[in-house]
Amino acid sequence: MHPPYLLTDLYELTMQAGYLEHGMADKPAVFDLYFRTNPFAGGYAVFAGLEPALAYLEDLHCTTAEIDYLQGLGLFNDRFLDYLHSFRFHGTIVAPPEGTVVFANEPLLTVTGTLAEVQLVETVLLNIINFQTLVATKAARICHAAGDGEVIEFGLRRAQGPDGGMSASRAACIGGARGTSNVLAGMRFDLPVRGTHAHSWVQSFPDELTAFRAYAKVFPDSSVLLVDTYDTLKSGLPNAITVARELRDRGHELRAIRLDSGDLAYLSRKAREMLDAAGFANVRILASNELDEQVIASIREEGGRIDIYGVGTKLATASGIGGVALGGVYKLVAIDGQPKMKVTSDPAKATLPGCKQLLRAVAPHGEYVQDVICLEDDPLLAPGATVFDPSNPMRQTTLPADVRLVDLRQTVLQDGRRTGEPESLDAMAERCRRDLALLPEGCRRFINPHNYKVSISSQLKELRCQLIEEVSSGRKKQ
Amino acid sequence: MHPPYLLTDLYELTMQAGYLEHGMADKPAVFDLYFRTNPFAGGYAVFAGLEPALAYLEDLHCTTAEIDYLQGLGLFNDRFLDYLHSFRFHGTIVAPPEGTVVFANEPLLTVTGTLAEVQLVETVLLNIINFQTLVATKAARICHAAGDGEVIEFGLRRAQGPDGGMSASRAACIGGARGTSNVLAGMRFDLPVRGTHAHSWVQSFPDELTAFRAYAKVFPDSSVLLVDTYDTLKSGLPNAITVARELRDRGHELRAIRLDSGDLAYLSRKAREMLDAAGFANVRILASNELDEQVIASIREEGGRIDIYGVGTKLATASGIGGVALGGVYKLVAIDGQPKMKVTSDPAKATLPGCKQLLRAVAPHGEYVQDVICLEDDPLLAPGATVFDPSNPMRQTTLPADVRLVDLRQTVLQDGRRTGEPESLDAMAERCRRDLALLPEGCRRFINPHNYKVSISSQLKELRCQLIEEVSSGRKKQ
Repeated sequence: MHPPYLLTDLYELTMQAGYLEHGMADKPAVFDLYFRTNPFAGGYAVFAGLEPALAYLEDLHCTTAEIDYLQGLGLFNDRFLDYLHSFRFHGTIVAPPEGTVVFANEPLLTVTGTLAEVQLVETVLLNIINFQTLVATKAARICHAAGDGEVIEFGLRRAQGPDGGMSASRAACIGGARGTSNVLAGMRFDLPVRGTHAHSWVQSFPDELTAFRAYAKVFPDSSVLLVDTYDTLKSGLPNAITVARELRDRGHELRAIRLDSGDLAYLSRKAREMLDAAGFANVRILASNELDEQVIASIREEGGRIDIYGVGTKLATASGIGGVALGGVYKLVAIDGQPKMKVTSDPAKATLPGCKQLLRAVAPHGEYVQDVICLEDDPLLAPGATVFDPSNPMRQTTLPADVRLVDLRQTVLQDGRRTGEPESLDAMAERCRRDLALLPEGCRRFINPHNYKVSISSQLKELRCQLIEEVSSGRKKQ
Repeated sequence: MHPPYLLTDLYELTMQAGYLEHGMADKPAVFDLYFRTNPFAGGYAVFAGLEPALAYLEDLHCTTAEIDYLQGLGLFNDRFLDYLHSFRFHGTIVAPPEGTVVFANEPLLTVTGTLAEVQLVETVLLNIINFQTLVATKAARICHAAGDGEVIEFGLRRAQGPDGGMSASRAACIGGARGTSNVLAGMRFDLPVRGTHAHSWVQSFPDELTAFRAYAKVFPDSSVLLVDTYDTLKSGLPNAITVARELRDRGHELRAIRLDSGDLAYLSRKAREMLDAAGFANVRILASNELDEQVIASIREEGGRIDIYGVGTKLATASGIGGVALGGVYKLVAIDGQPKMKVTSDPAKATLPGCKQLLRAVAPHGEYVQDVICLEDDPLLAPGATVFDPSNPMRQTTLPADVRLVDLRQTVLQDGRRTGEPESLDAMAERCRRDLALLPEGCRRFINPHNYKVSISSQLKELRCQLIEEVSSGRKKQ
């Protein structure tokens, strides 16, 4: 599909036109994309959405129909419309690979190019990265709650539009979901697809047993029977066990039963007992119905025996504490080779100026110790260096002498072209699993998680002090 | 764009295949789409999403690539794959026009056709209608809070994926937003597009005044200057006023200033004073920054002087009480001409059986009195009739003798083809405004809104009792 140039906020276009008019369109500029607080009041985020964002940028151009539309708005002059005719994105992007565990205030994407091109792509980069990172993080939390249980994404019908559903399926699988009910996502992203049947299937037959038999006849090796249409324990389970016996007699096995209402902890324990007693210890129990990480954790605390969690609404919309949007922002950090920062009365909104690197201090056995943001050429930063809290430069800490400093990012787009082949979602999911396992104890906790340290180097701290000083004296002059 | 057949949950396909296998694919069936509680704990919902849903169904077919993918799953036999080759949706849909104010438990869409076709479209109908109805409702709430103020949708960057953003812009304008920052939505849906500039514009110039002058030079008649990059009252406003004077000297007028941080109630009052004192009573004040209906209501209570509210995240993701998804469901209500209902232990999940009508009782002066759900042929229902609370048949009420009973729905798709031309979004927005104005006092309140009555006719009540009786006796027999 053609990536629409106009999938952007109007102000990106008016600024583009303005820069062109003032001869500033080709100034070299650098923007950072980052978020200010970890989503869901949690201890981390899972970076996702890069590949679709790069695919968008690589093909980005403005069609004649789009230019005609803009002309009709009466806002833009012919010079700008001509500029759009030949526009291509030639910028460079540095980013971590998808599935990397990242933290608040870390520069995720650094976008370098001409002022007019890097400004333009703000909206679409935020749109794609914000949402997929949020869903991947939600999925990682839900999978953590599920322990050894499998998580399947079931959210298409409650997702925010068709593409909301598609993006959610993709990102959920990066964060740890093992499959999706969304068949198109299965096809596009090579994900396992899973499904059961609806209550309407049962209602379309004279009775539940007939309905179960009919389904098992068509799918003898993959049936998951929904047992709550009439009465889970008195009707659904006994009928499912009858069908499981009949399947076994014909050399097949019922795959699972599905619970979709009621007290899932209690019903799953009872269902496990009944299935085991009937000789079906291999038949798995799938549960769905408004699940999220908190509900799953409490079901497990109460001894629930669920093998597979079908998670819909709360995963596909990533709802939870802190709302349903990652507050990602995209800020100018350098122009014409000069570092820039936004100095506001709200310290949480002050930016980190200049072209930076994002390093992870890794202990000898592989555990992650902390992250450090430093300037691109930062000769003083090494194991043993003193580093600083970005929000309070009085708080400093010393990097252990035995850590390795690993650059978390690489150049993923150069002169507008991707530098490598797209990775598989499996590789991203594997990276996410590994990263989460190497975090300090407590980072994955839901309530008051351990606060993973992200510091800035002394050179970056100095640059920031200097720019704050310049802005203050500049204000006095005005 | 080709509407992907596979944008669906796997279970829709396995059920379709199952019905085909058992010779049931062509049985006539009827499903209702409805939601069980009004979103945001509010008093109503604004129906939206119909036109995109109908466009999807009209073109629905399964491509060879999709069939090849399904074949590779190893789940489906050749007979089903052949069936998909020639599949087209030939069903009939009855629905209210978009922008209609609707309530919990009312049948919104009634979908009639063959069992295999009407089952298939469950996921995509829910996906589209759920989200757009939710956003249109959120927009109506925000516009109510804004009073005479204008609401503009600014959410693309925080929306749930590109299409999440597109659907949100469309639905927000049905619910009352007066424009969007999303240029592609402006082009596709013929909506007014609006914009300002970013902090990065100001930072790209040596100082704020130079930046404002540069912007006003390019857009002399449509400039909205963002005044909070350094200091709203000490720097941003004075500089904006300087530029407003310079514009006026050249025969133009500054359109507005934009506040994006700080205490918006206080800052807007001060900004109004400063602009008025300088002779710019015509310059409007736009505000943004995590607005929603509650924040806007409190700003207005404190005497804020905001003319235009730019609402992003909370509108485009429809976040608020009750989460970010309308819990729409799609339930079988008749098969083979026989009414069906789901009888569960949870009375809130019991369905209303049979083919129904949705009527609105309208008082002589046009006010809406209550809605009534009745059977398609319900000769007893007329003004003066006794009607019943669907969740408690002991509670009954009498329709006033002087009401008109208006059918809220019409046939919008017949044999798979739309019956009329698509309406303009303006017409839908106008319907929404009118409907909201005709609701009883208190329905629009945010806290404990008036509970608009939705009743069922005595015939529908009788049918339900009879089916519950049949299911109970059926259970005893098992």
